[in-house]
Amino acid sequence: MEFRYRIWLENNGKAFGKGPYELLKAVASCGSLNQAARLMGMSYSKAWRILNTSEDRLGFKLLLREAGGSGGGGSCLTPEALDLLKRYEGFTGEARGMLEALFHKYFGQL
Amino acid sequence: MEFRYRIWLENNGKAFGKGPYELLKAVASCGSLNQAARLMGMSYSKAWRILNTSEDRLGFKLLLREAGGSGGGGSCLTPEALDLLKRYEGFTGEARGMLEALFHKYFGQL
Repeated sequence: MEFRYRIWLENNGKAFGKGPYELLKAVASCGSLNQAARLMGMSYSKAWRILNTSEDRLGFKLLLREAGGSGGGGSCLTPEALDLLKRYEGFTGEARGMLEALFHKYFGQL
Repeated sequence: MEFRYRIWLENNGKAFGKGPYELLKAVASCGSLNQAARLMGMSYSKAWRILNTSEDRLGFKLLLREAGGSGGGGSCLTPEALDLLKRYEGFTGEARGMLEALFHKYFGQL
């Protein structure tokens, strides 16, 4: 027996969870939403929509979008997005450890 | 900002979570799967299917089904189901408290 869980932030609807988190991490490492979307096997428009919905619900911008040019422009994370990532990683990282300990406490002897 | 979460047990697929839990609690209080299904606004066949899938994946029976008769028969929980409810309630109850404290730690000042 194992357990699974999902944790997400809500603010007038689903605001931030695993999907937007992984997308932001990918943007941070490739410097471009277009490349991040490709890395995650989704279309640019889907990636854009996911982050746009998060931005609307969170009430702040996550990406600074740079204008196009021959390379198609790049994106980098806003200071608010970096702060959010730090909090989210702290929250979900500690949550994982505590849930594992609790699961062991209640179901370890099965 | 708020957070939401889902926790469930897995064993060859989703084995037990909020849906089957609420259904079992309803059977325990009305003594009949038929009435429990009605209470939860679902068809008898859907309720039966939910618990049947859980039983298959957990590997033990949840309900003792009594034969029909004029009242349509009744259902009561197996000892294994009662034990599962106790563990699940302990696990998810403690999890809720800890997640709330963690959320406050990481997002309380937003």
